[in-house]
Amino acid sequence: MIEHLQKIILDVDTGIDDALSILYALGEENAKLIGVTTTFGNIDLEQAASNTLSILDLAGATNVPVYKGSSSSLSSEEYIRREVTTRIHGEDGIGDANIESSTRTPEEQNAVDFLVEAALEYGQELKLICVGPLTNLAKAYQKNSEALQNVAEIVIMGGALTVPGNATKFAEANIIEDEVAAKMILESDLPLKMVGLDVTMRTILTQAETDQWEEYDTEQSQAIVKMTQHYFQSYRDRLGMLGCALHDPLAVGIALHPELAKTLALDLTVELEEPAKGLTIGDNKRIYHKKPTTGVCIQIDQEKFLAHFMHAMENVLKM
Amino acid sequence: MIEHLQKIILDVDTGIDDALSILYALGEENAKLIGVTTTFGNIDLEQAASNTLSILDLAGATNVPVYKGSSSSLSSEEYIRREVTTRIHGEDGIGDANIESSTRTPEEQNAVDFLVEAALEYGQELKLICVGPLTNLAKAYQKNSEALQNVAEIVIMGGALTVPGNATKFAEANIIEDEVAAKMILESDLPLKMVGLDVTMRTILTQAETDQWEEYDTEQSQAIVKMTQHYFQSYRDRLGMLGCALHDPLAVGIALHPELAKTLALDLTVELEEPAKGLTIGDNKRIYHKKPTTGVCIQIDQEKFLAHFMHAMENVLKM
Repeated sequence: MIEHLQKIILDVDTGIDDALSILYALGEENAKLIGVTTTFGNIDLEQAASNTLSILDLAGATNVPVYKGSSSSLSSEEYIRREVTTRIHGEDGIGDANIESSTRTPEEQNAVDFLVEAALEYGQELKLICVGPLTNLAKAYQKNSEALQNVAEIVIMGGALTVPGNATKFAEANIIEDEVAAKMILESDLPLKMVGLDVTMRTILTQAETDQWEEYDTEQSQAIVKMTQHYFQSYRDRLGMLGCALHDPLAVGIALHPELAKTLALDLTVELEEPAKGLTIGDNKRIYHKKPTTGVCIQIDQEKFLAHFMHAMENVLKM
Repeated sequence: MIEHLQKIILDVDTGIDDALSILYALGEENAKLIGVTTTFGNIDLEQAASNTLSILDLAGATNVPVYKGSSSSLSSEEYIRREVTTRIHGEDGIGDANIESSTRTPEEQNAVDFLVEAALEYGQELKLICVGPLTNLAKAYQKNSEALQNVAEIVIMGGALTVPGNATKFAEANIIEDEVAAKMILESDLPLKMVGLDVTMRTILTQAETDQWEEYDTEQSQAIVKMTQHYFQSYRDRLGMLGCALHDPLAVGIALHPELAKTLALDLTVELEEPAKGLTIGDNKRIYHKKPTTGVCIQIDQEKFLAHFMHAMENVLKM
């Protein structure tokens, strides 16, 4: 039997749920993570790259290359971390859980160049999973739109169509961090799937699950439980919720198991101006377009997803 | 064979597309229109009632009773017609097409009382189709929520979930005309189906269709073509569109032929404050509610709907 491994690239702003999404991708038997590209977002670019290397190393994935991309949005020269982001993800972005730093360094090649190169090399064999601001993806699209159009799928964690935003009443955080890039991507002809708050806020990890990880009693499991508890605490403080949404892992889950989500085919746009900056909404200019470009995930089988997630996490944390 | 006629009540603010929805309901062989309730909205209450009687009489439906309900929203003592509404629907609300006035008068009974009484009498045999502001429905719900809960379905034309609004960037017109009533209804446990701009803006009548009506060459067809041409003109002027959306008729179509639309089960709320007053959006307070109360229509088989609509209109206009 020839094993089919779905080649994937993760584009991350590592962040606690980014970290969980990397671990999840590593634990999925049917996926091959060929590289991780990094961006500003939950944390600045340097720390995002460093966190990404640390998480890969924690899981023993010391052969997965990491690429540095954008340090700020298309419309800004600098990254300013929102205060709430520090509360959610911790000072270091991964829950201030003293996760051991990697001794590796990122690749020389820029994330944007790597994305284009990989798209050219693997085409339909490759899925991109972008779980931060869409700056790297937009730059890659500007650089070689044809290459990007030719990948099997681009799954983005971002946006909110049928529910309110989380950064503002209108906007989801990844979108508003670079609304110009998001608009460019959502209005493009790329083969997009949007995994937004519509489904991610319904996909919850609770202490019942982290208790299982704790029982593995490995260095890895202890560190990841501690990291995740920081995330739990922020959900309790901000939303009164017991548990946390699995935003970024869900994008990985849907990329690898499309049957988990029901989608609505729609052409989307992004609002650039206040008061609703960052709003993702149907594009009235294309309302009569017969082949909408984005599959918006609107329903999720959360139990089945959680089973996949927990199985993969066991592969990684119980080593 | 015992014929099954779906009993329906239409709640209207007659309006050109309200008029089309009344004619459509009369022409549908499987429907029995047991009464029409009226409200302010596209026009003031008095004129809405008078227009409704005129349209019913034009179609020979002189036995269908008409009830007057709300003359202003729950939060206002007066109705102020928006200037754009006059441009869309004409001074008289039905396209200034000189449609003959009825000699009938509305019933003594108030629309709200009739809605409650009919709900009590017919229960699961009855569908309510509300295509104006939701003021009458909200008052009926306040008066006897149990009676209303017991009808087969309440189909509302209003709102916009996946596309922008039409009254403002955020709000659909029926919702913003009484956002307080809309919030009460959408947050209730009523068996709702929302037919919003998501589907109505994709359901277009063009001159190809009115040309068919013209060929019937009856008094009725001439009058309705003239009325509809006023609507066409407003779509051309405002949106550069050749044709018009069949907002209110689509609510009737989906009530009588549910298979026309794909729905998303969701609990909705309505924003009461500016800047997004009248926005219909998923209710985060009920995001983990397992049995959402509203079926939001998100996809529509427009060709099949148009076939139903044109068949029924032929029944009415070719007399």
